[in-house]
Amino acid sequence: MTSRPSNRPGAETFTVMFQPSGARGKIEAGTHLRAAARSLGVEIESVCAENATCGKCRVLIEEGSRGGVDSALDHLRPMTGAEAEFLAKRQRTWERMELDINRLRLSCQAEVCGDVAVFVPESSRGNRQIVRKSATDRFIELRPAVRRYFVELEPATLEKPLGDVERLAGALVPVMERVHTEPGFTAPAPDDLVFDLPVIRAVGAAIRDGDWNVSVAVWNDSEVIDVRAGYHDEAFGAAIDVGSTSIALYLCDLQTGNIVATESMMNPQTAYGDDIMSRMAYAMDNEGGLATLNQTVVSALNQLIRQAAKANSLTPDDILELVIVGNTTMHHLLLSIPTTNLALAPFVPTLHRPLDVKARDVGLEIHPSGYAHLLPIEASFVGADNMGVLIAEEPYNQDEELLIIDVGTNAELVLGNRNRLLCTSTPTGPAFEGAHIEYGMRAAPGAIERVSIDSETLESTYTVIEGEEGDTKVKGICGSAIIDAVAEMFRVGILDSRGRFDKTVESSRIREGEFGLEYVIAKEDETSIGRDIPITTQDVRQIQLAKAALYTAAQILLREADLERPDRIILAGAFGSHIDPTQALILGMIPDCPLENVSAVGNAAGDGARIALLNKAKRHEAMEVARSVTRVELPVDPDFQNQYMMALNFPHMSHPFLSIAGLIPDHGPDPLAERFMEGFDG
Amino acid sequence: MTSRPSNRPGAETFTVMFQPSGARGKIEAGTHLRAAARSLGVEIESVCAENATCGKCRVLIEEGSRGGVDSALDHLRPMTGAEAEFLAKRQRTWERMELDINRLRLSCQAEVCGDVAVFVPESSRGNRQIVRKSATDRFIELRPAVRRYFVELEPATLEKPLGDVERLAGALVPVMERVHTEPGFTAPAPDDLVFDLPVIRAVGAAIRDGDWNVSVAVWNDSEVIDVRAGYHDEAFGAAIDVGSTSIALYLCDLQTGNIVATESMMNPQTAYGDDIMSRMAYAMDNEGGLATLNQTVVSALNQLIRQAAKANSLTPDDILELVIVGNTTMHHLLLSIPTTNLALAPFVPTLHRPLDVKARDVGLEIHPSGYAHLLPIEASFVGADNMGVLIAEEPYNQDEELLIIDVGTNAELVLGNRNRLLCTSTPTGPAFEGAHIEYGMRAAPGAIERVSIDSETLESTYTVIEGEEGDTKVKGICGSAIIDAVAEMFRVGILDSRGRFDKTVESSRIREGEFGLEYVIAKEDETSIGRDIPITTQDVRQIQLAKAALYTAAQILLREADLERPDRIILAGAFGSHIDPTQALILGMIPDCPLENVSAVGNAAGDGARIALLNKAKRHEAMEVARSVTRVELPVDPDFQNQYMMALNFPHMSHPFLSIAGLIPDHGPDPLAERFMEGFDG
Repeated sequence: MTSRPSNRPGAETFTVMFQPSGARGKIEAGTHLRAAARSLGVEIESVCAENATCGKCRVLIEEGSRGGVDSALDHLRPMTGAEAEFLAKRQRTWERMELDINRLRLSCQAEVCGDVAVFVPESSRGNRQIVRKSATDRFIELRPAVRRYFVELEPATLEKPLGDVERLAGALVPVMERVHTEPGFTAPAPDDLVFDLPVIRAVGAAIRDGDWNVSVAVWNDSEVIDVRAGYHDEAFGAAIDVGSTSIALYLCDLQTGNIVATESMMNPQTAYGDDIMSRMAYAMDNEGGLATLNQTVVSALNQLIRQAAKANSLTPDDILELVIVGNTTMHHLLLSIPTTNLALAPFVPTLHRPLDVKARDVGLEIHPSGYAHLLPIEASFVGADNMGVLIAEEPYNQDEELLIIDVGTNAELVLGNRNRLLCTSTPTGPAFEGAHIEYGMRAAPGAIERVSIDSETLESTYTVIEGEEGDTKVKGICGSAIIDAVAEMFRVGILDSRGRFDKTVESSRIREGEFGLEYVIAKEDETSIGRDIPITTQDVRQIQLAKAALYTAAQILLREADLERPDRIILAGAFGSHIDPTQALILGMIPDCPLENVSAVGNAAGDGARIALLNKAKRHEAMEVARSVTRVELPVDPDFQNQYMMALNFPHMSHPFLSIAGLIPDHGPDPLAERFMEGFDG
Repeated sequence: MTSRPSNRPGAETFTVMFQPSGARGKIEAGTHLRAAARSLGVEIESVCAENATCGKCRVLIEEGSRGGVDSALDHLRPMTGAEAEFLAKRQRTWERMELDINRLRLSCQAEVCGDVAVFVPESSRGNRQIVRKSATDRFIELRPAVRRYFVELEPATLEKPLGDVERLAGALVPVMERVHTEPGFTAPAPDDLVFDLPVIRAVGAAIRDGDWNVSVAVWNDSEVIDVRAGYHDEAFGAAIDVGSTSIALYLCDLQTGNIVATESMMNPQTAYGDDIMSRMAYAMDNEGGLATLNQTVVSALNQLIRQAAKANSLTPDDILELVIVGNTTMHHLLLSIPTTNLALAPFVPTLHRPLDVKARDVGLEIHPSGYAHLLPIEASFVGADNMGVLIAEEPYNQDEELLIIDVGTNAELVLGNRNRLLCTSTPTGPAFEGAHIEYGMRAAPGAIERVSIDSETLESTYTVIEGEEGDTKVKGICGSAIIDAVAEMFRVGILDSRGRFDKTVESSRIREGEFGLEYVIAKEDETSIGRDIPITTQDVRQIQLAKAALYTAAQILLREADLERPDRIILAGAFGSHIDPTQALILGMIPDCPLENVSAVGNAAGDGARIALLNKAKRHEAMEVARSVTRVELPVDPDFQNQYMMALNFPHMSHPFLSIAGLIPDHGPDPLAERFMEGFDG
């Protein structure tokens, strides 16, 4: 370090204040502003060795009296040649950023020689935080595993012909030491800094093309994974959520934390089975089945990677890291790990631990030295996707008893708070995602997404996902609307609490279909397929099976935790966020809970992946949490089976959920439905 | 640990003696023999958790009075069921090994309850050492980087469905702790034990196929690189020397240290240039030149790997590690690192550091998780092959001033002792290997390998490398014989000290050839090619150029070290070992040195690779030495050029080498030749 902010006794000091934080203090004369800032707890960015070459640490000097500080440009020592030269060279950049060139200084150079007030522009602030939406807004501190550094090297000579790698390692470590501001950070010894083979192959040309200046990317403060000629500060990573039914990729700028592209697609493995059990059966029963499933998902990820890169005029090589979440089956299939033991009792995953693997070793086409980080697995059926949900929602940092339900083809549930966490999982089948439903479809243009039924006329109204050019012709009905429809049919009395059509109810929309009674949501002339779109007796049954699985799993967790109800319910999953909490309660899909405390957070697994991508400390947190979560097995005793059978019913008048009292109809007593409630009361 | 050898005060103790070392001491009752041995400094093998499952720790109990110890089988506690069962199960193994089943015990089980004398059979001894031939015989302690362990696992249950990797890691670490006997060894925490992806993919099936017993291979005490069902103790590795002209592979049994196969071939890169300069030129001047050279050598190595494996009924997957040496150019080309900056001033290698890379990352086809270790590089033209020579000969552990000359197409020289080491290198051209010589050929059947010339009759006699079925028809002349021939021609006066044919000498074997005078070594009727085989004026010139380069480089090192002559000279390299030291001195190819102190050690680079394969501590030693060696540049001043010109001559009568005084003829004074000697005297 050139200048130390600690004040020697007797040394001349001046007041320095930093805006917008307002941090201020006495600083010894001759200290440069970046060191002064650090001593006052203000972090200013930098990727070079504090030698006026990266410009990241630019600040604006306030003139006049600010916050009680009489500040002036000449309260800093005059610019050195290097600083003046650098600022002049980048003049157009400053103009584009609307930074006043007359007030601009590089904080690594400007030395204090009087009282001064300094404004740190947004783009120069270290430890930036990103707001992310959740049940409550949260901040992600930006501490990605991949960081860029700019390194100036002494040219090799016949007298000092040291190898390129040793030369670079020796010059990089001091830069890391200067740039890093985390407390407790210790740079590795140059010899311990790993250089991946593709970097070793590229380093000689990069050094000379950059005229002995290079930019490197270092992963986890331990391995150099990229080297480029000259100055570059961009770094990208992607968070990926591999669901059984759909895959989502979020391409992030690791410098700003922003999502620069979102890409998604159906998981093409669905061609080999709708749910995880059928995929695992395919892998077991077919020669090369595992390889087929593996290659299918790897190709899909590579396609999303290419799309996301292209959308930003990047190449896949610009992506330096992936963080991937998925349920245990998706996780194993992506890594080409056999799922046999996951499918058969005692249902053992091959591993729980988080994994860092070279993307190339799993066929993922990003930067040749880039890593893929997979979050840890809690249990056979509570996977890395659930870990994503956990680190996004952080129940372990809260007092409220939180029930998180990640609704998917396989649902994962976590209940608890800072004292303890319980988890379980249950297959729900693909009904929630529109599959196995007569006219079910994905949430895509032409899908009915919301349904309500008038309790007097029994007429339906609905909204449709618009296609291009505002086309609203109906093609089918997606998961959220199926739930709406069944809940509404129950609420208005078309269905009884056991899910049967009430034969005494009359409406032109109720009719005998191929497999029993059905209710027509959309009429022939409103659809693009030229047919009525009904909800059939079979469809209702599918929803009952799926919601009973969810409800029973939640009740088992509550019983295990000795709780009557959770304080708060979070519905996660891309699909979960489309469920209307009222309808979910009417159906008895989730346990009773004050309506205002039920919220949907979207793809929390994907969010968790993004959080882990942007803040490596969260990976460690995930590992700790994964170890502390207690897995609750869904019991196999007949008692449980009975409870599940009972949960097929809808909440009954005589045992209404407090939260929806008055919303459900009185159809008179139903002995079977009553037993459903008793099953859990007892 | 079950039993500790430390004696508590008051505890009953007995005398235990181990043969053949004769180590003896007082051991507390109840201590098992392996622990007793360790406390007395005697290492006994084991690869299991001291639970009678591997049998490696078997010992023989001596009966009667031995070394003053009254020993009897019943001075040990009776066998447990596990020990008796194991010994019975392997009865045929013991018979085949000629071990007396009645005296056999497992030292991890047998507990002391009386005085006892124990014989540790060769096959059970820990820290075994292997004698290797060298200038002086040396021992290699057997401490390979890859070690096998046998692990018994508790089967997974519904109650404890822990993942396979976590289960194995948890059970393996205690086994490592028990098996390891190195002082200061600390086992990693189970979570820190790395599992490579191919192992993760294989672990589930291996565990269940082995009925919850597996054998693993751990690399560098830190990464599991192989897992197999049930008990396996074999482990193989290969040491590879990639020379500019030839490649040699030594397949080693890592359990015994024995070489089980030796394979060699011409380096097929010779198709793209004879020496390193022309290869580097090919890589620079041709589109895809680097890739071509890389693939050529990688394919060659894969071929040798397959051959060596097949010769032992193994597959390449059985080879768990490679240690590779080669000059800097060979090293870079093998790793596909551009050689541009190596070829152009200031001649910078891309890296010096030793490298551990996954063999798969360089296309080498061994075990999918196997590593290749490349020894460090001292300087641009003093490469990892020279490091191999250094760790084989260990000049840094000696007082004598050792000059090591690794003779190859590019020669590397090291001079020094424990106080300091100097190195340099020089191109010698391929003349020593028979190329660029009119009738030169490799040392293969049909090659003349030794030549002498009668000083009276000037008739030649020679020996030929026999072909199959004893065929001795001559095809050509190999390097060692070319040196013999030129030295003999000088000794008997056919050549003068400047290498010119003396026109006054008359012989039927001397005649005018196409490019001047020549001397016929073998006559037409003795050859299979139906032509006379002569040494031509051109051939003499080639040898002069090559030997002058060697001699000058050696003199530069001596001058730099302020030494008149080395105490000892070692000629290394497959070719170096065929050079007759006397002839080398007569030619002035090496500096003056007492004849008895000049020796040839064969392929020391390959030996060094094998040493590093069998003892990982030597890798660390290599790294330390690589850092401490001082590189001496061959000067470019005119003075040096003059010395080189002078060194083209042969040592002259008026300045004979002390070591060969009387062996060289008096041709009268030769002013130019005299200046040759003066060049170095001054």
